[in-house]
Amino acid sequence: MARTQGSHSDITGPRVRAAALRLFAQHGYAAVSMRQIAREVGVQVGALYNYTPDKQALLFSLLKGHMDDLLEEWQAEQRPEASRARLEAFVRFHIRFNLARPEAIFISYMELRNLTPENFAVIEALRKRYEGALEEILRDGQAEGAFSVPDTRLASYALIAMLTGVNTWYRAGGRLSIAEVADIYWDMVRKAVSADDATGAPQPA
Amino acid sequence: MARTQGSHSDITGPRVRAAALRLFAQHGYAAVSMRQIAREVGVQVGALYNYTPDKQALLFSLLKGHMDDLLEEWQAEQRPEASRARLEAFVRFHIRFNLARPEAIFISYMELRNLTPENFAVIEALRKRYEGALEEILRDGQAEGAFSVPDTRLASYALIAMLTGVNTWYRAGGRLSIAEVADIYWDMVRKAVSADDATGAPQPA
Repeated sequence: MARTQGSHSDITGPRVRAAALRLFAQHGYAAVSMRQIAREVGVQVGALYNYTPDKQALLFSLLKGHMDDLLEEWQAEQRPEASRARLEAFVRFHIRFNLARPEAIFISYMELRNLTPENFAVIEALRKRYEGALEEILRDGQAEGAFSVPDTRLASYALIAMLTGVNTWYRAGGRLSIAEVADIYWDMVRKAVSADDATGAPQPA
Repeated sequence: MARTQGSHSDITGPRVRAAALRLFAQHGYAAVSMRQIAREVGVQVGALYNYTPDKQALLFSLLKGHMDDLLEEWQAEQRPEASRARLEAFVRFHIRFNLARPEAIFISYMELRNLTPENFAVIEALRKRYEGALEEILRDGQAEGAFSVPDTRLASYALIAMLTGVNTWYRAGGRLSIAEVADIYWDMVRKAVSADDATGAPQPA
């Protein structure tokens, strides 16, 4: 309440982050200079350093902010009691969340290698928390007898990779809506982990 | 037969490609100079230009070579008649092929944006051919009644993303062998596309 709405740093912060996100996604972190970011924002490079100590801090802030949003929004989702319905909620949430922020998803995968080891460890821990949320659903469903998953850890990696892959091909205005894509992916995920499966007999080698 | 084994260009070519692959994977294409590649190979930068016109040609050659190998090795695989067995062969082939060349997979995803539009179009066409090979299996299985896939195109994207994701977490010498990983992924893929599924009843919205 005491802070002035629209003060200098309130306005600059989001604009710096938006410019950095756009430039990193377009050219790659290594190819973008603080000078370019300042030019994109329309400030002197010195003013940029009032906001962020360096380019690494900016990258980290973008990736950390993205993971914080992801975990926070998943926490806020309606999560049904039954694990099967919870898995469906996760699938639909993940696709919807990711398609709404393609640049953040892109740099979150592309620029991991450009984080310092300390910063990477922070992002890695947040990713593991998110993967853990999916793994918990899979373990619960396994315990309920709703799912049959030989390895819940690997299944969480496999499903997240599958769902995140949507961002590489989905184009808004194409033949499918986001909800239709989510329906199709949910059909595959639902069956992939299902315990009700007649093809599960051991196969001849 | 007429060519001299081990002539200068015979030796330099593979060494240049290996050095470029290593450096691009480690630092990113944008951050690596021809001078650095020459130093890594142990030649003058002028000698490098005898082998390749520029850094873009080198990147393209690596990505194209990778896709050519992928398509050629998949062609050479034993491909059983039944679509279910063919899908299993694809899953095991993809995981095995990718885990054998982590750096090539890494730059094939990371450096796509650094290709010129013409070069990108070539790689994109080869990728589509590979995705098409999987989609054909899915369509055949659909026709045989072995698979039930609402959208074979999307299913091919989804399965390739899932399988390629193995490269992001697999570490040789960890708790699972490549064959065990392939078993676990095959179990999920098999069920994901299966027509024998008791959970397929329409769900309340």
